[in-house]
Amino acid sequence: MNTIGRLYTLTSFGESHGPGVGGVVDGCPAGLSLSVERIQEELDRRRPGQSEWTTARREEDRVEILSGVFEGKTTGTPIGFWVRNNGQQSGDYEKLKDLYRPSHADYAWQGKYHHRDYRGGGRASAREHVARVVAGAIARQALEPLGISIHAYVSQVGNVSLETEAARVNLEAVEENPVRCPDMRVARLMMDEIERARSARDSVGGVVSCVAKGVPMGLGEPVFDRFQARLAYYMMGINAAKGFEYGEGFHAAGMRGSEHNDEMVVDEEGRSRFKTNHAGGVLGGVTTGEDIYFKVAFKPVPTIGKEQRTVDKAGREVVFAASGRHDACVVPRAVPVVEAMTAMLLLDALLESKRWEICFSNIK
Amino acid sequence: MNTIGRLYTLTSFGESHGPGVGGVVDGCPAGLSLSVERIQEELDRRRPGQSEWTTARREEDRVEILSGVFEGKTTGTPIGFWVRNNGQQSGDYEKLKDLYRPSHADYAWQGKYHHRDYRGGGRASAREHVARVVAGAIARQALEPLGISIHAYVSQVGNVSLETEAARVNLEAVEENPVRCPDMRVARLMMDEIERARSARDSVGGVVSCVAKGVPMGLGEPVFDRFQARLAYYMMGINAAKGFEYGEGFHAAGMRGSEHNDEMVVDEEGRSRFKTNHAGGVLGGVTTGEDIYFKVAFKPVPTIGKEQRTVDKAGREVVFAASGRHDACVVPRAVPVVEAMTAMLLLDALLESKRWEICFSNIK
Amino acid sequence: MNTIGRLYTLTSFGESHGPGVGGVVDGCPAGLSLSVERIQEELDRRRPGQSEWTTARREEDRVEILSGVFEGKTTGTPIGFWVRNNGQQSGDYEKLKDLYRPSHADYAWQGKYHHRDYRGGGRASAREHVARVVAGAIARQALEPLGISIHAYVSQVGNVSLETEAARVNLEAVEENPVRCPDMRVARLMMDEIERARSARDSVGGVVSCVAKGVPMGLGEPVFDRFQARLAYYMMGINAAKGFEYGEGFHAAGMRGSEHNDEMVVDEEGRSRFKTNHAGGVLGGVTTGEDIYFKVAFKPVPTIGKEQRTVDKAGREVVFAASGRHDACVVPRAVPVVEAMTAMLLLDALLESKRWEICFSNIK
Amino acid sequence: MNTIGRLYTLTSFGESHGPGVGGVVDGCPAGLSLSVERIQEELDRRRPGQSEWTTARREEDRVEILSGVFEGKTTGTPIGFWVRNNGQQSGDYEKLKDLYRPSHADYAWQGKYHHRDYRGGGRASAREHVARVVAGAIARQALEPLGISIHAYVSQVGNVSLETEAARVNLEAVEENPVRCPDMRVARLMMDEIERARSARDSVGGVVSCVAKGVPMGLGEPVFDRFQARLAYYMMGINAAKGFEYGEGFHAAGMRGSEHNDEMVVDEEGRSRFKTNHAGGVLGGVTTGEDIYFKVAFKPVPTIGKEQRTVDKAGREVVFAASGRHDACVVPRAVPVVEAMTAMLLLDALLESKRWEICFSNIK
Repeated sequence: MNTIGRLYTLTSFGESHGPGVGGVVDGCPAGLSLSVERIQEELDRRRPGQSEWTTARREEDRVEILSGVFEGKTTGTPIGFWVRNNGQQSGDYEKLKDLYRPSHADYAWQGKYHHRDYRGGGRASAREHVARVVAGAIARQALEPLGISIHAYVSQVGNVSLETEAARVNLEAVEENPVRCPDMRVARLMMDEIERARSARDSVGGVVSCVAKGVPMGLGEPVFDRFQARLAYYMMGINAAKGFEYGEGFHAAGMRGSEHNDEMVVDEEGRSRFKTNHAGGVLGGVTTGEDIYFKVAFKPVPTIGKEQRTVDKAGREVVFAASGRHDACVVPRAVPVVEAMTAMLLLDALLESKRWEICFSNIK
Repeated sequence: MNTIGRLYTLTSFGESHGPGVGGVVDGCPAGLSLSVERIQEELDRRRPGQSEWTTARREEDRVEILSGVFEGKTTGTPIGFWVRNNGQQSGDYEKLKDLYRPSHADYAWQGKYHHRDYRGGGRASAREHVARVVAGAIARQALEPLGISIHAYVSQVGNVSLETEAARVNLEAVEENPVRCPDMRVARLMMDEIERARSARDSVGGVVSCVAKGVPMGLGEPVFDRFQARLAYYMMGINAAKGFEYGEGFHAAGMRGSEHNDEMVVDEEGRSRFKTNHAGGVLGGVTTGEDIYFKVAFKPVPTIGKEQRTVDKAGREVVFAASGRHDACVVPRAVPVVEAMTAMLLLDALLESKRWEICFSNIK
Repeated sequence: MNTIGRLYTLTSFGESHGPGVGGVVDGCPAGLSLSVERIQEELDRRRPGQSEWTTARREEDRVEILSGVFEGKTTGTPIGFWVRNNGQQSGDYEKLKDLYRPSHADYAWQGKYHHRDYRGGGRASAREHVARVVAGAIARQALEPLGISIHAYVSQVGNVSLETEAARVNLEAVEENPVRCPDMRVARLMMDEIERARSARDSVGGVVSCVAKGVPMGLGEPVFDRFQARLAYYMMGINAAKGFEYGEGFHAAGMRGSEHNDEMVVDEEGRSRFKTNHAGGVLGGVTTGEDIYFKVAFKPVPTIGKEQRTVDKAGREVVFAASGRHDACVVPRAVPVVEAMTAMLLLDALLESKRWEICFSNIK
Repeated sequence: MNTIGRLYTLTSFGESHGPGVGGVVDGCPAGLSLSVERIQEELDRRRPGQSEWTTARREEDRVEILSGVFEGKTTGTPIGFWVRNNGQQSGDYEKLKDLYRPSHADYAWQGKYHHRDYRGGGRASAREHVARVVAGAIARQALEPLGISIHAYVSQVGNVSLETEAARVNLEAVEENPVRCPDMRVARLMMDEIERARSARDSVGGVVSCVAKGVPMGLGEPVFDRFQARLAYYMMGINAAKGFEYGEGFHAAGMRGSEHNDEMVVDEEGRSRFKTNHAGGVLGGVTTGEDIYFKVAFKPVPTIGKEQRTVDKAGREVVFAASGRHDACVVPRAVPVVEAMTAMLLLDALLESKRWEICFSNIK
């Protein structure tokens, strides 16, 4: 429902136009020095209003830690947090009360719950991602001392794609432009693509790629809890996600076994290594120690200024066009969300894998 | 771990070269007349040896129901079942004992468990899918009286693709050829593609498409348990799956909002309907009542007759080529597995959705 | 961990001397008109400072609803709430920093987490019960329209017991005295017992009894999730609980089958009924439709003014006596907590039981 | 439902009069040398027909391991097992088809499921405990190398009680008499008590006490997953259990804080120790390293030869007396079941506690 994870969990709550969005992180290891500033930095990366490519709506997202931290360190008890909403004017949303916006949650939620918060999507709004970014930023701080890092970037916007393969991308360059594409030349084309959509009062989709480095061998629990199955679950739970692939992904369908298989070799220091990493860092549901890489496809945001046909609660056809300013492309803002979800899963899988260590004491 | 589902669950056990594969289905509604023959039919669809396009290894998979059914009807208690393995000769696998086959689970599992069943993959073998097919066939019998049906088919093998969109495919024709592609012309090209791979002692990947019809509005639990997130988890938990997409999937990344949005209209009978279904039957994490369609990409099977380099447990480089006959393409046999997983999830989500009905008694 | 329930869940967070205590209720049916006043009333029942029999420490517990309610009704999305702590002076607790109070969580938590909030028990404090009372008060509002009511009372304090059996107690009289014993004569003896403990700078334990009425037949999921097993889990998760029994409980151990068995009869209206209810409303793990009754034993609070020996973190023996005013008996304040936990479980089991209704549509 | 545990889980299936009872153990550490003989020994302890004090019905319970063990060692994959039923004659049970036996599951299950296996209780029969004994015997073999042992015994039968406190009982003597009371003098009185019940065609209840030794400090997860809350859940999930208490239990309700508190001292070797163990080995929901002791009360078995009134499905009053031979007291046979459930929980909690070890690497 609104809790994700097995041993490192986030329970999220709050709506886009209620008082705020919050969450409870449970299972965070005790004794971790927690930097609230670093959590705030991640929130700032997700925040709209960072540049001309994002909405003008001002959300100043300040995280407040409510529990679970004492003398600057985590205590192993749940970390409650809260991010107040600012500047929502419910009045703007009165006209949404009785109609179902095309390709939004409105219609299905009305059918499911019979009573819904119609203001700006309510709980279905991507504003809920705020909670995930906080929980991910906490997980990240637990992963870093272990040498695990996570790097997402935009690899496609509309019909503009970054062709460089994940292993060769300059991950340091991601934050150098507002579209979060690590190749400045392609980034400019992407910005043009967004600009074209915006000026047509339209929106455009895209793809986020992600690489996790330093992940130890052995994370993931076959058969159903394969690492990639859980990763897909985490990613497809992000608003607007339409597809997930890891390693060669859909491209693998067209490959021969002899091409796709990763041969193993012994390196100069005598260690067994994979010569290639078509697998994307996971075999048999378990991480191999190689980089994990994957992609998530996002649809264009459904909120557009163009007129569209839809129906209202009374069953009448109406014409609807979103007013106000809206993101023409949210994919750059999905980058910190993809990273946050990945961090949560990695910490969860890492904590889960600790129990297998009991094996070795029993073997003798 | 080895249990999947929330209210309709399968716990699976067994290895490819142990005595057999079994499972326990829990949460099946009571009072359902259960046809064991229909379960057997689904198992037969997954079985190797159905045609020249599949392995010659003979597995006669006979399902035995061990509990949970009384006087031909389910009792609401767990349904244990067992499918004995036949004809495995462990001797064949002695040479696998100390080496890590390329792109198999061998290396990662050794790292995780320090002790593994090396005979034909053991628990990592796709033979475990037998348990899923049984559990899916039971779920299917609970769904059918409610008008819900599930249809999977092969839409790509290697570089041969079926271009027809899901809504226009002739779902009746799927079983008419061994490659399970509903267009006979394309099916022949796929068979040629498989034949070419086989004669090169190689293998080839592919894509399975699936459509679920008659699914009521309101299944799925936002935020994390969105229907599509769980569906991705179910699909990416199938052996060899590398990618998942629903609705327009990765294609949506290149679309404009005005193209991708599904407008709503009022039909002749006065009902609100979607004019298109780019969404693939899910909005805001909840089913809309429209058809659910999605795709799963599979890598080429890693077991090939060609020689490949790899390493052994002692850390030496060795050359390995699989002996015996093996499927050059397992994608047609993945069709009943994709259907089974879909059936399990649909029944689970349906049972979960029942609790919301309490809403209406409280509203008054 | 810090989440309880399957379909109606509470995730709780917060410490006794942090900024406050909060929680997230998930799975509450949508469309329920929620009275915040009624939640507040339950919190007031748990609050210290209600009478001379309770601590003078002033906690003004005001509940604030943060999400999940729109236009006065629940939306089916998570209900976040927050109760701010007042008047805690951390300074008082400095001397607790380095010692392990006898029979408190201090020693075991230090061993487990290596870093703990030593101020007044932190997360181990009974102040965390605030979250449960809120979640229980919400559940109660969902149960009442269905005719389900829950009544707890104090049946023992120290060596003073109420001998009246549950079925004959005047449940209306519970709130008429501060000790929450429905028999005023026994209540006075209990107050004397507490007064004696207090004047000796000591504390005293007790027992809370509870009856749930109007519970429909069929709640509870055998085999492991028997109604009584979950009830025991909910009750033994309350601070200071040492024992749980339902129906005849420990007394049943001394009974003969012919005494303990509940015979069935046909009543005047032709309905099958139980002649007696030794079972306490549950058979085979499933509710029978009869009243559910059970007891929970609480140890005396470990915080006492008397001097006691203990050890400090440096491994030295020290003498410790709690300063300030403390409850000599918390059992009366446990009454709303027992009711809250019962309400949460009943709603959870009720929601779970809805899925079995799918049986009937399939049978035909 | 039919799965218990978080990281070490048992999924149980099977009915008393179906083909057998089985289970799937998941999460067992890999590399454990598993003795099937020792599992069988535990099953033999639970089996009826061990002496004149138990039923004459012959159940030869042979456990068969179906998966998860390779070359004598566990692989970390699920351990499926199966115990065939012998000698059940369904014919005997035809007369039970349409009536509800007093204080059995019959009536409530009919109400819940509308279709049930009426043969000897079906799934509600204590025969299901076979699965628990197997899973417990596996857990035990993982716990023993860590120095953890579990000892249950009968401390009450009807009105005969063993007054010796748990810490002074001779645990070695438990198996020396068929009633499993470690004091031979009291055991004889218990056997007389059972004999009296039997000759009156009646049954009698009792209490099982249990001590777990060598349990490390730090198991259990506050707040809801307190060790004692989960222990209560495991115990109250055993057939016929009516009450649970740990440490001083219900007796604590009558104690003063100064009596009940466990003072701490420094022992000769300079280690912090508890002077007493009224707590029963758990404080703040977490194990303290002291012995864990607790009691479980069992009702008299409802199946008796005496005539009793009940009703049938048609709503008519009937008179019923059980035919055949039945246990007059099942408490001695509950001893291995209590031990098995304890072993499962201890291993589960131990595996769960491993993840906290990540704390220490982060602290630095």
